[in-house]
Amino acid sequence: MDPKLGRMASALLALLLLLDGGMLSSPAPPPGPLEKIGRYIDLHQDEFVQTLREWVAVESDSVQPVPRLRQELLRMMAMAAEKLQRLGASVDSVDLGSQQLPGGQSLPLPPILLAELGNDPRKPTVCFYGHLDVQPAKQGDGWLADPYTLTEVDGKLYGRGATDNKGPVLAWINAVSTFGAVEQDLPVNVKFVLEGMEEAGSVGLEELVRREKERFFAGVDYILISDNLWLSRKKPALTYGTRGNSYFLVEVKCRTQDFHSGTFGGILHEPLADLVALLGSLVDSSGHILIPGIYDSVAPLTEDEKDTYKAVDLDLEEYRNSSQVEKFLFETKEEILMHLWRYPSLSIHGIEGAFDEPGAKTVIPGRVVGKFSIRLVPHMNVSVVEKQVKRHLEDVFSKRNSPNHMTVSMVVGLQPWLANTDDNQYLAAKRAIRTVFGREPDMIRDGSSIPIAKIFQDTLQKSVLMLPLGAVDDGEHSQNEKINRWNYIEGSKLFAAFFLEMAKLH
Amino acid sequence: MDPKLGRMASALLALLLLLDGGMLSSPAPPPGPLEKIGRYIDLHQDEFVQTLREWVAVESDSVQPVPRLRQELLRMMAMAAEKLQRLGASVDSVDLGSQQLPGGQSLPLPPILLAELGNDPRKPTVCFYGHLDVQPAKQGDGWLADPYTLTEVDGKLYGRGATDNKGPVLAWINAVSTFGAVEQDLPVNVKFVLEGMEEAGSVGLEELVRREKERFFAGVDYILISDNLWLSRKKPALTYGTRGNSYFLVEVKCRTQDFHSGTFGGILHEPLADLVALLGSLVDSSGHILIPGIYDSVAPLTEDEKDTYKAVDLDLEEYRNSSQVEKFLFETKEEILMHLWRYPSLSIHGIEGAFDEPGAKTVIPGRVVGKFSIRLVPHMNVSVVEKQVKRHLEDVFSKRNSPNHMTVSMVVGLQPWLANTDDNQYLAAKRAIRTVFGREPDMIRDGSSIPIAKIFQDTLQKSVLMLPLGAVDDGEHSQNEKINRWNYIEGSKLFAAFFLEMAKLH
Repeated sequence: MDPKLGRMASALLALLLLLDGGMLSSPAPPPGPLEKIGRYIDLHQDEFVQTLREWVAVESDSVQPVPRLRQELLRMMAMAAEKLQRLGASVDSVDLGSQQLPGGQSLPLPPILLAELGNDPRKPTVCFYGHLDVQPAKQGDGWLADPYTLTEVDGKLYGRGATDNKGPVLAWINAVSTFGAVEQDLPVNVKFVLEGMEEAGSVGLEELVRREKERFFAGVDYILISDNLWLSRKKPALTYGTRGNSYFLVEVKCRTQDFHSGTFGGILHEPLADLVALLGSLVDSSGHILIPGIYDSVAPLTEDEKDTYKAVDLDLEEYRNSSQVEKFLFETKEEILMHLWRYPSLSIHGIEGAFDEPGAKTVIPGRVVGKFSIRLVPHMNVSVVEKQVKRHLEDVFSKRNSPNHMTVSMVVGLQPWLANTDDNQYLAAKRAIRTVFGREPDMIRDGSSIPIAKIFQDTLQKSVLMLPLGAVDDGEHSQNEKINRWNYIEGSKLFAAFFLEMAKLH
Repeated sequence: MDPKLGRMASALLALLLLLDGGMLSSPAPPPGPLEKIGRYIDLHQDEFVQTLREWVAVESDSVQPVPRLRQELLRMMAMAAEKLQRLGASVDSVDLGSQQLPGGQSLPLPPILLAELGNDPRKPTVCFYGHLDVQPAKQGDGWLADPYTLTEVDGKLYGRGATDNKGPVLAWINAVSTFGAVEQDLPVNVKFVLEGMEEAGSVGLEELVRREKERFFAGVDYILISDNLWLSRKKPALTYGTRGNSYFLVEVKCRTQDFHSGTFGGILHEPLADLVALLGSLVDSSGHILIPGIYDSVAPLTEDEKDTYKAVDLDLEEYRNSSQVEKFLFETKEEILMHLWRYPSLSIHGIEGAFDEPGAKTVIPGRVVGKFSIRLVPHMNVSVVEKQVKRHLEDVFSKRNSPNHMTVSMVVGLQPWLANTDDNQYLAAKRAIRTVFGREPDMIRDGSSIPIAKIFQDTLQKSVLMLPLGAVDDGEHSQNEKINRWNYIEGSKLFAAFFLEMAKLH
């Protein structure tokens, strides 16, 4: 063969191989692995929905500590363990012992499932975290149907746990199982951490992660969590940061008992008046925090960063309507996103010890505890904030010359979290989203603190990715929680595409 | 007979009569009516205590709406009606029908007893108000003995209702009955209004007083209430005024549901921040009310009035200790009394709708209701105060440019009450106190509003006297409520002396 022809043939072969990989669109290419997978998932979607129906049917409520529900939760974990075993994974069902309740009663804790599938040293190892417990729900709370019977209306799958978090857990399992079904090699090693106490504070999880750091988690390269939502109904998102939180209690005490306002009103330094002055010194009417120094460490805003907010899909009018808020502090999308994600905020939550019931009680509370918290952003530091808050409150209080006793304590201190979006798994997730959804993802942060991300980040020092599947209106924790069939099915494809992209980038 | 001798004999006779009246002390005068009465009461004090024991034994709790207690209350009213009949009074037991409870249940209301004894047009008619219901009490709350078994320790008669108000009601009855026992003409016509729902808001009383204005109350000259306490343990008191009260609710609403501080913190005009600013604008750290105009109508302080506070028996050190208050807003007795009695005060009571439980909930309340009240003094006017408060809050709120909705409402509006202490019954009461206790009474006011005094004052336009019998440490409404045997017995004498003085002054 003419060497020229030979080179041409080689080039043609290479092109065909490339086409087979699904990287180029052409009139009729032979299906690539992702296309096969996508077709399989589409064809079997009713089976996937059926499995979700079976999982939703288990009332795995971890919040209400009653024996019947705890049994349901244990049953849920056993079902999941069996599902993972059928997938071919080796499953370690880690017993966490029992939970002591305040009344002296005790309840068994659900095990945490540590599962792994594949240990090819040439492949990256991705660890998926999810939870199978749910918030309480009963039809009488305002559900249109029984919350534990998955009910489909207009492509929406209503049911407790559908989006938080049973749907995303199953989407991950669907993606893994489909590789087997279409006889494709799973391009990544997969690990699972599935817990059953997330809604009740992830009892035992942090300790387990620490204990398993050098064992189960030793080979893990990436951690993926899919336990939040998009910012939009239709546009996928990647979450790359969460705010931290520092929660303060400020107690002002005159004496333990309350006073009668007729008998003592007029001669007391009233603790509640002191507290109202303290709380009133924290933030002005434009939302600006008045604690000296609080903004000192906030990361400066760059032009590049500004552009990222412009790209985010947020329909302000719809957001306002769905929030039922007449007017926000800010007028533009960019300002709103920045004040939810990259600037600190201070909220006053309430007062313990004052009169809080309906009616008109003439009481002067003897001891009151005000509660407020500051959402922290990069590069604020929890301990610095704690000092600033205490110094400020002491200043304000000392100016009142009150003989009452003030005590300030920080009861929660969570650092903000910000991922490096140039990490491989962020790049892989972006590409997978482009492939499956045909568009760029919203790059979003979460204004809340997500303790689970922080636990993995701090304990394992690995890259954590939050890749949500659910739409903004899924109603986690609310009545009529749902996941759209489209999100569930396309989400299963997204995870499969993510595996392929990870393998390429690794 | 020589006319001179005749005149001398007449003068001597007059002198003897005067001595017989007990107005002069002399080595061995024949006993006057009050002396006889005092001796009788001393001799029969155990019987009087025994009656109090029988009355305290009835658990006439009007606060807890349960059938068993309501039956006890009806039994108490029947016992009192019988007691008054045995006294010779004609008793009208006015049926008030039944009380509808929120649950749909209904309970019979105890009758109000309207009783009268004597209708001599030459005598003054004094109407005594008292109540026979009590606050709830059970030994487990911290009582040293069963609250419904009158228990005497060191001259203290412990039992629920002993001082509030069964003891004073019986002291009045003891005084009346003793005139009969020592065969003395009762120098006044006596009427009784005894109710059984005082601790539950005097259900039906105001309407009855209005309805009976031209009938039962037509001949009444004076109204006497003995349902409060002295300011001292030993020194008797006369109460000549109470503060009024205006109770405000200020609602700030963004939406009905709460927000999550992670998801919304930073972009909201938070209702609780608005409310804290509103409440913080009401009073400064020295207790001075900041509402413009609020002090305009406060009666100017005269030198004479100042002197009345000097005379009041109040041991500041003991007061501070028993109140468990380290430091009051003011240093002197006079300032403290004036700020409790003759200056308005503003107290913040609490907030409805905010987070009020233990723990650290990251909520932004969507709708909050602040509660505060102003104790009113002569010559403040409830409707003027209402306008001033609303205008002030609207001013403060408008400066915040908040899109939230503020609503201010005044839910209680009670005018202050001040008696004319030159009234006959005040003079008579002072003289009776001098006679029985050998000292001047403390002239006191009450910082609280006493609705019952206002009802009589406003409806009947008669002079109302508050003549307490109990000592400052009697513990009305508390555990271990008591009346001292000394207060109960000397109090019975005091009422008898009061009858005699009233008759003289009329």
